[in-house]
Amino acid sequence: MTSPLQSLHERLQDNMLAVNDVILSRMHSDIALIPRMAGYLIAAGGKRLRPLMTLASAKLYHDDITTLHPLAAAVEFIHTATLLHDDVVDESALRRGQSSANHLFGNASSVLVGDFLFARAFELMVESGSLNVLRTLSRASAIIAEGEILQLSLQGQTTTNLDQYLQVIGSKTAALFAAATEIGPMMTGQNEAQQKALYDYGYNLGMAFQIADDMLDFSAPEDLGKNSGDDIKEGKMTAPIIFALLHGSSSQQETLNKILKKDNLESEDMHTAQTILKDTNAFIHTETLAKTYVLKAEQALLTAPTSALRNDLTELAHFALTRGK
Amino acid sequence: MTSPLQSLHERLQDNMLAVNDVILSRMHSDIALIPRMAGYLIAAGGKRLRPLMTLASAKLYHDDITTLHPLAAAVEFIHTATLLHDDVVDESALRRGQSSANHLFGNASSVLVGDFLFARAFELMVESGSLNVLRTLSRASAIIAEGEILQLSLQGQTTTNLDQYLQVIGSKTAALFAAATEIGPMMTGQNEAQQKALYDYGYNLGMAFQIADDMLDFSAPEDLGKNSGDDIKEGKMTAPIIFALLHGSSSQQETLNKILKKDNLESEDMHTAQTILKDTNAFIHTETLAKTYVLKAEQALLTAPTSALRNDLTELAHFALTRGK
Repeated sequence: MTSPLQSLHERLQDNMLAVNDVILSRMHSDIALIPRMAGYLIAAGGKRLRPLMTLASAKLYHDDITTLHPLAAAVEFIHTATLLHDDVVDESALRRGQSSANHLFGNASSVLVGDFLFARAFELMVESGSLNVLRTLSRASAIIAEGEILQLSLQGQTTTNLDQYLQVIGSKTAALFAAATEIGPMMTGQNEAQQKALYDYGYNLGMAFQIADDMLDFSAPEDLGKNSGDDIKEGKMTAPIIFALLHGSSSQQETLNKILKKDNLESEDMHTAQTILKDTNAFIHTETLAKTYVLKAEQALLTAPTSALRNDLTELAHFALTRGK
Repeated sequence: MTSPLQSLHERLQDNMLAVNDVILSRMHSDIALIPRMAGYLIAAGGKRLRPLMTLASAKLYHDDITTLHPLAAAVEFIHTATLLHDDVVDESALRRGQSSANHLFGNASSVLVGDFLFARAFELMVESGSLNVLRTLSRASAIIAEGEILQLSLQGQTTTNLDQYLQVIGSKTAALFAAATEIGPMMTGQNEAQQKALYDYGYNLGMAFQIADDMLDFSAPEDLGKNSGDDIKEGKMTAPIIFALLHGSSSQQETLNKILKKDNLESEDMHTAQTILKDTNAFIHTETLAKTYVLKAEQALLTAPTSALRNDLTELAHFALTRGK
């Protein structure tokens, strides 16, 4: 069976190829390290989910979406820049199953090439000629940074509550999805209600993807190319942990708190944590939380014109639950 | 005697106070770490040279320069963001005589708060409503990153030549000065020749400031709040070193090359390097180089309307030689 993600990629294949050309030509610089490093990261690929969302959200309204190509590339550049900077922040050694860029090229290069891609993204946006788009994406960029900083401030804080977690992921992940989909109706001349609807779709889709991703952090490393349990090792307070602490007995809370405060986790600690998460139904609670966002995403799309593409986008929200971003 | 810098600050005092208000209000965020860290850096202050240049370059043409206030703040935010990221790249412990922000707050915070300020700068530019300004400053931002990356690639490369050095400082320093002064005539509706003239002024002024700064790196640490000889310790190939290698005898070249390749420099090494720099007239050659840019900056201003302010700007270019940026 074709996944909605595959189906979207097929529907938008020509446009995605054009976006790819923009990405390749605009990550070029005479400073050789830039295309080498950006190429490493961008070729490593991922699903190009965000530019795909930008294209799809425009295609809902308009057939010729050529004007969106530089913007879809800009969205991918912003995302790639945040990944590069995240790696410096997290000091993580793996990203998408490969050595992370900062592990290979060093912190200094990660910081600076990230800055270059971020600046390039704004150059691409200027070419679009739309101040509304520039406003939307510059605001989203500031919110992403705020989310990352909030996450950093909460690192290792075992008292982090669900609201704080939702604020973190709403900023660091959902804001860019929301902006990516909002600019579709914006650039094709739709009214504010349609722009708001697609903003809501992207925001809730991003929330669902991130919550699913945080759940997947506890499993299947070889599949997703992440180190299993990275978040817990880095003291990131994600939904499964927060639910386990909320619903656990005093003794389960105490054990989990101790593990979260440890500097070097051993596999025994990870195993104990997994058991507590399972026994407190933390994964079930997390899935329920993610589902509320899937339903909101679905709801938001109802005012968009019906089409096979819209169906795919609806399906994608449900698909988010089964795969990380 | 009043320096041209003081005189410019006095002439533009009310406008600078207004820019200060924009800076303070727009570095605010509910995430407490952001105003705390940005405040630390922005309060530490420096000379606010770049926003001053933006205001002055508009005031040459127009009396009411209120529309420039958010842009002057944006220019300072871009500069502050690059300082924060530079500190991560350089791992330097001192900045303007105080502990550097990354030394106090850590690399992760420096990266992320820099990103926040950079995004905020773009939000401020969008408010100006000028796509030309956005184009100018986003291009400058990409060029700054390229310059920093080139500098990183050349680190410790004792074969670095003068052209490569000029490319580095033209990108990492002069590009932002050029953009800062170009937007003055741009926002006050002057023609392209005037925009080009002020671009040239800022570019050459920035070159002169950076070359003077690189010369000052070899002296007077307590005065400028930098560690003396930082550049040589970090393997940065600046003008004095390049001239010393160019004009030195084979034995002087050999000694200097050895020192440049050492991992940990002792005070004896620094003393030897200083002696070679003096004996090869490296500082005199460097000053001559800086002077060529001062003259170009002066030349560029000749087409701007005559005024006491213009005289100050001309004087500032000469003043650049005696003080670092």
